[in-house]
Amino acid sequence: MTKKVKKELPIILITNDDDITSPGIKALVEAVKDLGRVVVVAPDKPQSGMGHAITIGAPLRMRKMDLFGDVESWQTSGTPVDCVKLAVDKVLHRRPDICLSGINHGANHSINVLYSGTMSAAMEASIEGIPSIGFSMMDYSYDTDLSAAKVIVAKIVKSVMSKKQDKHLLLNVNIPSGKIEDIKGIKLCKQAYAKYEEDFIERTDPHKKKYYWLTGKFKNFDKSKDTDVWALEHNYVSVVPVQFDLTNYKLKEQLEKSKLFK
Amino acid sequence: MTKKVKKELPIILITNDDDITSPGIKALVEAVKDLGRVVVVAPDKPQSGMGHAITIGAPLRMRKMDLFGDVESWQTSGTPVDCVKLAVDKVLHRRPDICLSGINHGANHSINVLYSGTMSAAMEASIEGIPSIGFSMMDYSYDTDLSAAKVIVAKIVKSVMSKKQDKHLLLNVNIPSGKIEDIKGIKLCKQAYAKYEEDFIERTDPHKKKYYWLTGKFKNFDKSKDTDVWALEHNYVSVVPVQFDLTNYKLKEQLEKSKLFK
Repeated sequence: MTKKVKKELPIILITNDDDITSPGIKALVEAVKDLGRVVVVAPDKPQSGMGHAITIGAPLRMRKMDLFGDVESWQTSGTPVDCVKLAVDKVLHRRPDICLSGINHGANHSINVLYSGTMSAAMEASIEGIPSIGFSMMDYSYDTDLSAAKVIVAKIVKSVMSKKQDKHLLLNVNIPSGKIEDIKGIKLCKQAYAKYEEDFIERTDPHKKKYYWLTGKFKNFDKSKDTDVWALEHNYVSVVPVQFDLTNYKLKEQLEKSKLFK
Repeated sequence: MTKKVKKELPIILITNDDDITSPGIKALVEAVKDLGRVVVVAPDKPQSGMGHAITIGAPLRMRKMDLFGDVESWQTSGTPVDCVKLAVDKVLHRRPDICLSGINHGANHSINVLYSGTMSAAMEASIEGIPSIGFSMMDYSYDTDLSAAKVIVAKIVKSVMSKKQDKHLLLNVNIPSGKIEDIKGIKLCKQAYAKYEEDFIERTDPHKKKYYWLTGKFKNFDKSKDTDVWALEHNYVSVVPVQFDLTNYKLKEQLEKSKLFK
């Protein structure tokens, strides 16, 4: 990705949000360990749904682990975003050449990109000027078959590393579950407009006080064929290029014309 | 905003990330309480830096409070995003006409929009189809003078409520500290490309184990005059229209042309 000293291996930083012991991160390490010097810095506990959270009010712990054979690994008490920050500042002491996050147990398509710790870690790296990819599987179960996902991951990472990319390149990759022969291909997509229709389940504790569990039904409002939801429903791997500039330029122009704040 | 039954007051949902007792949320309530029926649903503890976190693995508590005179208020054990979800599903049993988040003690300009619980609450509402505004003050201190901010907030909310807006309207408003006469005006801006250069401070605990505090220097890489950082440095209120579609369409087109994944 960046110019390297002769024969120096590219550094591949790996993190996730499910925690350092999850099968998904192990599969990710195995899929790319021959493509460079892999270093894992990942949370010591599940951090799903953490979004772009960072740890401000508490200190962070980090310790070296021995979980991936000859691949260096560290676990931290922080969020996925904290892991990327710690990796750059305290483990690698430089930017890695690429950052990979996942493989997440569960989909991060459409609006889920906003809630996803997997994608936030990748986005943090992208802000830092590190090309980054977040990988997620459509299957939530921990004992899902990750063999097809490993083939897809290796293919995509090899492609991205095969030439110089924009330093802010950021991809949200979702992989259908099933066998490799069932996957129809890789599709560049846009993020579908979908949301969860919330339905909090109300319970009562032994002290007669109410509490609530967040649940919700996924609803896709975007029926076009160029979305990640469409691709996944049709057994394609979805690749959504993602940006961290959240400015809504179209709305900005409309508001400028309307002179709303004059 | 939406069509209402004759004479029914618009419902204004207020939340924040500093917690329900912070001076900022009180100032926000005071600034807009004459513009509709205000309902507060906010976290019971500080949630700064929570980004778009949601609570999946634990149940949520919620209880009615009496903190704002005749304004209905509820505190929850959840994140800012959880508060919006609970407000719609369990308090209001409908979408409010507008959602306001803040006033945050501390700036949420440029890249901070991604880490901000204040803006994530507003974004969650926007995804739900509720026009939303997040307000933040440039001053982190809790005893800052909020009188100028209240005038600005009232002006902006009145403008937005004065006509029908796009249901996904989402604004990130940052207000300079100081007196109202020092503020030069309100500027529509884009999000500056800036980041924090991390610098973890290493300490050793009484058991001789290391721990780390996240700190960082803010660096603005975007010197153009249409950014929120520029506006705030020149004593303007910055208003950045924000979107939740993170698709990088330009990069998508480039990757399509390059046939990277073919």
